[in-house]
Amino acid sequence: MALRLGLLLPLLLGQLCSQLLGTSGDSILHYWDLRADNGSWRPKRTQDNGSEVSAHTLLFSLDYQHVQVPFEITLWIMLASLAKIGFHLYNKIPTVVPESCLLIFVGLIMGGLIYSLNDKSPPVMNSDIFFLYLLPPIVLDAGYFMPSRPFFENIGTILLYAVVGTIWNAFGIGLSLYGICQVKYFNLQDVPLLHNLWFGSLIAAVDPVAVLSVFEEIHVNEKLHILVFGESLLNDAVTVVLYKLFKSFCEMPSIKPLDILAGIGKFFLVGIGGIFIGLLFGMVAAFTTRFTKTIRVIEPLFVFLYSYLSYLTAEMFHLSGIVAIIACAMSMKRYVEANISQKSHTTIKYFMKMWSSVSDTLIFIFLGVSTIGNNHEWNWPYICFTVIFCLFWRALGVLVLTFFVNKCHVNTVTRKDQFIIAYGGLRGAICFSLVFLLPEFSRKKLFIAATTVVILFTVIVQGMTIRPLVDLLDVTRRRETSPTVSEQILIRFFDHLLAGIEDISGHWGQYYWKDKLEYFNSMYLQKILLREYDQPKSSIVLLYEKLERKHAIELAEAGQLIHTPSSTSLL
Amino acid sequence: MALRLGLLLPLLLGQLCSQLLGTSGDSILHYWDLRADNGSWRPKRTQDNGSEVSAHTLLFSLDYQHVQVPFEITLWIMLASLAKIGFHLYNKIPTVVPESCLLIFVGLIMGGLIYSLNDKSPPVMNSDIFFLYLLPPIVLDAGYFMPSRPFFENIGTILLYAVVGTIWNAFGIGLSLYGICQVKYFNLQDVPLLHNLWFGSLIAAVDPVAVLSVFEEIHVNEKLHILVFGESLLNDAVTVVLYKLFKSFCEMPSIKPLDILAGIGKFFLVGIGGIFIGLLFGMVAAFTTRFTKTIRVIEPLFVFLYSYLSYLTAEMFHLSGIVAIIACAMSMKRYVEANISQKSHTTIKYFMKMWSSVSDTLIFIFLGVSTIGNNHEWNWPYICFTVIFCLFWRALGVLVLTFFVNKCHVNTVTRKDQFIIAYGGLRGAICFSLVFLLPEFSRKKLFIAATTVVILFTVIVQGMTIRPLVDLLDVTRRRETSPTVSEQILIRFFDHLLAGIEDISGHWGQYYWKDKLEYFNSMYLQKILLREYDQPKSSIVLLYEKLERKHAIELAEAGQLIHTPSSTSLL
Repeated sequence: MALRLGLLLPLLLGQLCSQLLGTSGDSILHYWDLRADNGSWRPKRTQDNGSEVSAHTLLFSLDYQHVQVPFEITLWIMLASLAKIGFHLYNKIPTVVPESCLLIFVGLIMGGLIYSLNDKSPPVMNSDIFFLYLLPPIVLDAGYFMPSRPFFENIGTILLYAVVGTIWNAFGIGLSLYGICQVKYFNLQDVPLLHNLWFGSLIAAVDPVAVLSVFEEIHVNEKLHILVFGESLLNDAVTVVLYKLFKSFCEMPSIKPLDILAGIGKFFLVGIGGIFIGLLFGMVAAFTTRFTKTIRVIEPLFVFLYSYLSYLTAEMFHLSGIVAIIACAMSMKRYVEANISQKSHTTIKYFMKMWSSVSDTLIFIFLGVSTIGNNHEWNWPYICFTVIFCLFWRALGVLVLTFFVNKCHVNTVTRKDQFIIAYGGLRGAICFSLVFLLPEFSRKKLFIAATTVVILFTVIVQGMTIRPLVDLLDVTRRRETSPTVSEQILIRFFDHLLAGIEDISGHWGQYYWKDKLEYFNSMYLQKILLREYDQPKSSIVLLYEKLERKHAIELAEAGQLIHTPSSTSLL
Repeated sequence: MALRLGLLLPLLLGQLCSQLLGTSGDSILHYWDLRADNGSWRPKRTQDNGSEVSAHTLLFSLDYQHVQVPFEITLWIMLASLAKIGFHLYNKIPTVVPESCLLIFVGLIMGGLIYSLNDKSPPVMNSDIFFLYLLPPIVLDAGYFMPSRPFFENIGTILLYAVVGTIWNAFGIGLSLYGICQVKYFNLQDVPLLHNLWFGSLIAAVDPVAVLSVFEEIHVNEKLHILVFGESLLNDAVTVVLYKLFKSFCEMPSIKPLDILAGIGKFFLVGIGGIFIGLLFGMVAAFTTRFTKTIRVIEPLFVFLYSYLSYLTAEMFHLSGIVAIIACAMSMKRYVEANISQKSHTTIKYFMKMWSSVSDTLIFIFLGVSTIGNNHEWNWPYICFTVIFCLFWRALGVLVLTFFVNKCHVNTVTRKDQFIIAYGGLRGAICFSLVFLLPEFSRKKLFIAATTVVILFTVIVQGMTIRPLVDLLDVTRRRETSPTVSEQILIRFFDHLLAGIEDISGHWGQYYWKDKLEYFNSMYLQKILLREYDQPKSSIVLLYEKLERKHAIELAEAGQLIHTPSSTSLL
């Protein structure tokens, strides 16, 4: 019920308001429209009859344009939230179908409604809005709550998958699709190699939003999760570079080897530049929270402001915003949490989760909405082969790369894990926004159709089947209970031990570097970034205190303290 | 240091980015500009050289327009926050000068910098942005945390001040200024009566933002606070009506008695309509939170969404948005809090505080920035008399109204309180935005100058002197300690007692109605709006539990539980 309400509410209200003012019914979606000049957040017609509206003030008057933008944005968010509630009213549904699929279906229904009401294809999600407003909250949430230990333990593998894997996919898909285009029978000869590669570069990237929303629900083991998720986050740098590279290649009259070299250079620039910007803002954020003791109320703000700034700055310089915001979040977290109050911490955590879940919801709904309509060119062979190649090259890539990974690691990636990694390569809104950013050329609509199909196929088919598959293969799951103090102490102990061994043996492995970093941190960074900086306690003591505090908060918020001796409150 | 940094950061960055792209330096403030077409959130130039920017992708390229809007908004918020921190670094300053004054000074300095850098007057705060984005968070915060008991105990007095007082002020100021205009020597004869009344209607209203920010810092007794603050909130309805009324009168060729009648009718419509819309959304919000048990993460969202929708809806129908959002917040609070989790509650509370404090800061900074520049017409007599009349008519109004109030109340408003009420009638950003919304006519700049002076005078002079005055008169302060359980039980007991007495004596006073409302609430509303609805507990038991929970949370968040037996966390 709530779901259905959530569906129709914004639509009908929007229609109503628009009809009342004799404006065309699509105004409610106007600014989601690519064809609207980017970022102009209010339909042109505002300027037109804005004056005439405020003329008859004495009668019962209505001025919709005045509030249109915030009103419609609020309604859309409301729809998203109500839809979410709608699903969770029936506990059965979300256990079978992942939420992302449900949301896409909602979007499809809405798109159909809009289509039927306006007799014109509903507008598509504006790429600017996606990249500037919807994506950052999700990535920030992901980065801020990224389990740093497994992430850094597997950083090598993740980077291999993210960088080599994505390039492999891009070229694999691009080239093999070019091969398909050569088949006279499919009459696709007019699609040049560069366009195929360009398309490959945008379809190759695994989408963090989709991966997150699916893997959140199937609780696979931590390592598997971080491998897929970390890849989906870090491959952004590669995607940005490849996409921009092929874009400029297409624009250039001729491609010199120098350009390709520049492209490779650009790749390092984009990745490392992103990390650098992220770290910079992260440090500044941590430093800022040193001074918020007297004014707790705006503490949470800085986490959001600085990380968003890092994202925007990176985007501004055509670096990888995702990498930047993740570096920022991961670097600031530790110091910020030490500086701010518990309540600010709760606010940050819950607001972040809320925000990301909302924009996640909006993204999938708009994916659905944007699917409907007649901006697709249908060509069976091309589309089918795109899906096949996406699956094939990813599977092959994972197999080959994991072979090398397992050569130089002790705890190897099992066959099951490899299958899930390959199968979990979902595509999502990023590809979608990128394909719409393509300049207008003859076959753009074909690419749009292919991308849409790939996204729907991966999110819906793979998304729905991955959970049963995980059960079937019984992939080792994530342990539900959080580690006890004694366990954590042991882990710490072994870290120190291994660091020592590595140091003696002269083999500078991760433990060695981790130890050095820890030393640098306690020697310099903490002195600068933390407010109450007393003598560095042993990490084990700190851990103990942390667990204690966590425990206390949990108790209180579970309301289990209500029956503690309450003498204090009686006076 | 941080303050100075905060000051220059956005400005210089903005300048830098703009210079880099050869765009004019004022781009950073472009969308705060009234002359920019309202709501067009991106400077026109984006479309112009947006393409040319993304041409050289292989080199190190920068695309500022792409991120301009969010980037600059973020920078402004950052400036506001850093300025706040800057003040609080030196604990002496805020104790002497209220924050609002400091912020206005910051704004003035910034305005000066921009003025000197661009050799053109800095842009003024866009009224749309103020009313749609900056004002609602503050009012929501105010309404959500409004102490309902003193508010409803004094509702009669508050309404009297808000409605009669504001009308009194508007006409008093308007008419006496018209009188001034008749003096040949001042050569102001060209200012007609209607324009004076119009000006009076916009300058008459006490500003909630200014009042809040000043009275938050001087802890006067609860009753005095609620009288001034309640008036400043509720007079919005009157202001809206009077302003629109005179606006339409000015536009009309001739004014018929019917129009005046319509105006009076409109007044009730605006006020009661606002309340109705607010209650409606409040109830829906409470009802929605019934179903969020399975998906806690988006609970806080609904409080913000529904209250904002109520505000926008009211604005859309030209009703009083402030009244609507307050009614919404006050009505939903009780049920929402019963439905949502403690963590969501903390998130709502702290995020609301954060948000309102930020937009409060922004408002005062922009007041300062907008003051600088050459959009003022200076006429000594008119401006001086405006200030004088504002003070005079308010003082007189308070005296007269309080006389009647004291006649029919037991606990009267003392002379001291009356003085503080009269003296606390600060003007603020609402007047400022309204005066800029005036249509272009010969003397608009004079009105702008007068309004600016009145605001600066009230906020700075009165704002800075009110605290010493309160000390001097030693006005009864707010009690710092929160009432104990026993006290609250007594209060409840007396409520019931008085309700009974009133019922028997047949005199239907506030206690009678409160009792009836309470009955209706427990009989019907709670059944519909609350999730876990068990047998209605005695209000005293509920109170006890509430205090207990509060106490537990406080303990946990003060970290006092760290040394409780921690066996559980050791497993």
